[in-house]
Amino acid sequence: MIYSAIPLAQTVIQLCKAKHIKHIVISPGSRNAPLTIGFTHDPFFTCYSIVDERCAAFFALGIAQQLKEPVAVACTSGSALLNYYPAISEAFFSNIPLIVLSADRPPHMVNIGDGQTINQPNVFQNHILYSANLNLDEPVKSTNHDFVDVLKTIEHKLEDVLRLQKDVQKRNEIAINKALNIAITQSGPVHINIPFNEPLYNRISELSVSPKIIAAEPHALEIDFETIEGCADAWDIAERKLILVGVNGPNEIEQKYLDLLAEDDSVVVLTETTSNIHHEAFFSGIDKLITPLTDAEFKALQPDILLTFGGLIVSKRIKAFLRQYKPKQHWHVGMHKANDTFFSLSKVIKTTANQFFSELLNRTTFLDTGYNAYWNEVQLLRNVKHNTYVNQCVYSDFKVFDVLFKTLRKDSVLQLGNSSTIRYSQLFKLPYNVEVFCNRGTSGIDGSTSTAIGSAVATNKPTTLISGDLSFFYDSNALWNNYIPADFRIIIINNEGGGIFRILPGHKNTENFDYYFETKHQLTAKQLAEMYKFEYQTASNEHELQSELNTFYNHSSSPKLLEIFTPSTINDIVLIEYFKALK
Amino acid sequence: MIYSAIPLAQTVIQLCKAKHIKHIVISPGSRNAPLTIGFTHDPFFTCYSIVDERCAAFFALGIAQQLKEPVAVACTSGSALLNYYPAISEAFFSNIPLIVLSADRPPHMVNIGDGQTINQPNVFQNHILYSANLNLDEPVKSTNHDFVDVLKTIEHKLEDVLRLQKDVQKRNEIAINKALNIAITQSGPVHINIPFNEPLYNRISELSVSPKIIAAEPHALEIDFETIEGCADAWDIAERKLILVGVNGPNEIEQKYLDLLAEDDSVVVLTETTSNIHHEAFFSGIDKLITPLTDAEFKALQPDILLTFGGLIVSKRIKAFLRQYKPKQHWHVGMHKANDTFFSLSKVIKTTANQFFSELLNRTTFLDTGYNAYWNEVQLLRNVKHNTYVNQCVYSDFKVFDVLFKTLRKDSVLQLGNSSTIRYSQLFKLPYNVEVFCNRGTSGIDGSTSTAIGSAVATNKPTTLISGDLSFFYDSNALWNNYIPADFRIIIINNEGGGIFRILPGHKNTENFDYYFETKHQLTAKQLAEMYKFEYQTASNEHELQSELNTFYNHSSSPKLLEIFTPSTINDIVLIEYFKALK
Repeated sequence: MIYSAIPLAQTVIQLCKAKHIKHIVISPGSRNAPLTIGFTHDPFFTCYSIVDERCAAFFALGIAQQLKEPVAVACTSGSALLNYYPAISEAFFSNIPLIVLSADRPPHMVNIGDGQTINQPNVFQNHILYSANLNLDEPVKSTNHDFVDVLKTIEHKLEDVLRLQKDVQKRNEIAINKALNIAITQSGPVHINIPFNEPLYNRISELSVSPKIIAAEPHALEIDFETIEGCADAWDIAERKLILVGVNGPNEIEQKYLDLLAEDDSVVVLTETTSNIHHEAFFSGIDKLITPLTDAEFKALQPDILLTFGGLIVSKRIKAFLRQYKPKQHWHVGMHKANDTFFSLSKVIKTTANQFFSELLNRTTFLDTGYNAYWNEVQLLRNVKHNTYVNQCVYSDFKVFDVLFKTLRKDSVLQLGNSSTIRYSQLFKLPYNVEVFCNRGTSGIDGSTSTAIGSAVATNKPTTLISGDLSFFYDSNALWNNYIPADFRIIIINNEGGGIFRILPGHKNTENFDYYFETKHQLTAKQLAEMYKFEYQTASNEHELQSELNTFYNHSSSPKLLEIFTPSTINDIVLIEYFKALK
Repeated sequence: MIYSAIPLAQTVIQLCKAKHIKHIVISPGSRNAPLTIGFTHDPFFTCYSIVDERCAAFFALGIAQQLKEPVAVACTSGSALLNYYPAISEAFFSNIPLIVLSADRPPHMVNIGDGQTINQPNVFQNHILYSANLNLDEPVKSTNHDFVDVLKTIEHKLEDVLRLQKDVQKRNEIAINKALNIAITQSGPVHINIPFNEPLYNRISELSVSPKIIAAEPHALEIDFETIEGCADAWDIAERKLILVGVNGPNEIEQKYLDLLAEDDSVVVLTETTSNIHHEAFFSGIDKLITPLTDAEFKALQPDILLTFGGLIVSKRIKAFLRQYKPKQHWHVGMHKANDTFFSLSKVIKTTANQFFSELLNRTTFLDTGYNAYWNEVQLLRNVKHNTYVNQCVYSDFKVFDVLFKTLRKDSVLQLGNSSTIRYSQLFKLPYNVEVFCNRGTSGIDGSTSTAIGSAVATNKPTTLISGDLSFFYDSNALWNNYIPADFRIIIINNEGGGIFRILPGHKNTENFDYYFETKHQLTAKQLAEMYKFEYQTASNEHELQSELNTFYNHSSSPKLLEIFTPSTINDIVLIEYFKALK
């Protein structure tokens, strides 16, 4: 086997291996050569080479999102690692385990005017679970003249140096173990900064270190007796229990619990597209349900207990509602930091939703209060009006989403872009067998395509990305990627700019608005598709759309891109009229 | 006139205006709408709209680099601003004034699970001169239900609120003034984080605040008497004075001082392509000069006094030489932080090079030591061997640079990409009337095209960018830009990967090397040129190259892109042979 000759590189790599971190996304560079040599020569690891670090990190995020296990990115020193930052912040707020390995120059070579050298230690501190700032491990073997000088000046004797070196090795091992364990148990981003001295490219055939492996201690799932009894008592008497599910992975919640919740007339379960939870008795179109409500109706919906689990909530309207009509109690269930989204958080139960429901539903009974029944009728009414509107609706973003959601592949993964894409998606029913993902941690438009491609690589299911035009062009380098499966599909809804801004309360139809807010453009994805060998299809009206979709998902030897052009000035009106029509 | 109704937005904008900050690069967003409304409706400002914040910040950097005055970037909340970070770090290490204006949610809406919300205050702290974390300025007028609740709970009376508000306004004014003044006087990046409450789009026709303007206090240029006398005394007796010039703007040093230095036989002036200093008696090809030197010759070159000014040094060989053969004294002259690049910094003189030379050269005399004369002869010999090699050299990266440098436009600006581009450029003579720039602060490959386009917008001279293929594709979104002048030219040297890695000491010609280091690809810029309306030309041999260059710089209605394909496996050999041939 080939290893880097640098013990610190071996240590990092051996510990990654011991922790079962298999997927390594490498960006080219010289300073990180010891890592590249080590990772790529060990068949345990699946390595990827991606040049643009911004895309590389989102690609890794997409893999980690699917596998629910840490994925590492590795890059050279300098500004390279700063390009990871958008994905790191997304991982931080979405609780996705991402391990950032940044090669660095030795500390005595930082801030002396050398190239590709920045202040790397703790550089992500606002959005990282832990920063391991490793120390240079082998000063004695170094052939670097300056460093020998430095050592001379501090007058170390050889034994001192050797002892120091052992201490450094031990400290590094502890820090690496800690970083990896935190990424695993707390599911989020960690940063390991790794200084390497030259020479960087030397290899050896036997490991020269065998680092100590410190096991991760997973958090206990048990809820203490008093807490769960208190919950059960309150649950049993609460007449209106609203469950609101944020971003939640497919199959995370056992169906038997969902079935029980669905039977309880005092429970209303609100889900979003990103909740990945389905039941006929649940309410999947939050905005559709609540937008037309009067003050009296809002009061009727106001819950005694609001129970939330999962990640961030997409619907702005549900947030506004629950902030104004506050629940008497708000419980949040989950392993991660709980958000006080509605300024009424009263209980945080640190366990999984499965564990919580298994204990709660054992201790409680159904209550017949008409809460669910009433809102179920409202929902039925909305669905009728929704269908009527959709059927007579002109070609527009809204109409396109209706068509797209009705024609998705079975048993597929759907990746959604942010801004208008994710918001439109909330309005339409999704087939139960489609798994949905969206970067809602920071809700950025910056890495959706890269994330989708990473996801497509990691899952066995065919993956479709739906994206707006700005978001797609923003992450166009995502396509600079050798790993895109042939069954990957991109659908771009090109309304010639940021359609979301037409929905927001700006001053539309002025030159200033078009230019600085909507950011009008005439670009198409045609050339990018050609450059990166995607089959390219377009549609500019409903007939073309239906016709293109007839073949779009068919087996192909290359991935495909469907660009749908919609009339930007109509889109916002169609949406406004839709919400009016629901009343 | 139209202003944002939010006083804090007015304050930021009025203070930018008072400080003559004219160029504002805006990325679309909703949270920053108060800034967008304010900046774009005031004809004092020249506003630009650029979607990808990574490109937007490098574009701003390019403008600031040319104008030597602060340029602002403004974006929405969330991960958007993290995309500025690569350019911010470049500005930090290149001393370029960049003002980062990030809109933020109000603090009570951060970390509660709202979208596009991250931990913005101090997020750039490793690479920023100052972070002004502003406070929300108008709680009373807010229509935000929650905030009113918050106020109620802390039981402020109305007067208290009003007083508090005035205090906040004053503190914000001081922080903004401080940030802008630091950017101006210390020439580097500053961050102003600006929380805005909804409603964000309201406008008014009269300003509601008139913020206090605090003048910047420029640093004194005078050198104290003792220091300059000490310098003069040492200078007068030193037999070998080596002047090494780093990154230095065109026309920064008065020619009369350069002429005087050129006449002194005890002075050797080493310049790089990025020094923008020219004299027949100077030594512009450092690597060409010193690569073949023997130990005895290095000792003969070893200076008594090393004088440096300007920014970072490109040549790795001169660094290695001066670290091994340390100067007796190293003086650095400049307004910014001095780097102890050679571990021998003995004196930092905080003034401009002009001021220093005006005082030093007045106090000193020439010394006839043969130092310059000897190295001048070496240089003449090298030039002969260089020309012989160039004339017989096969088509390769090396040959291409020779041709390109001989055919550059007069009185033009040359922007160079990092990695092999900047390194090859050191080997060839540049016409004196060409001004050269390169992002050497972090030496990243990440924003060269955006910087070049910003520079092209800000200068009256025609601008040419020479870039490697990886660097060009990395920053491909740079072309998503409405401001590219028709006389802008891009030259891509496409050797199908990271040519620099073939020059570095890796294990070439293995599959692993090709894939993870050189990052082989078959991409061309053809489709991007078509997408972004560049005229596109190619060359794959010397004859084609000469022929394309005959018309490439001609007047055109669109910018042009010339893609030069070179044989990747030959390039490194040609370069190695070149250095051998110099002996």
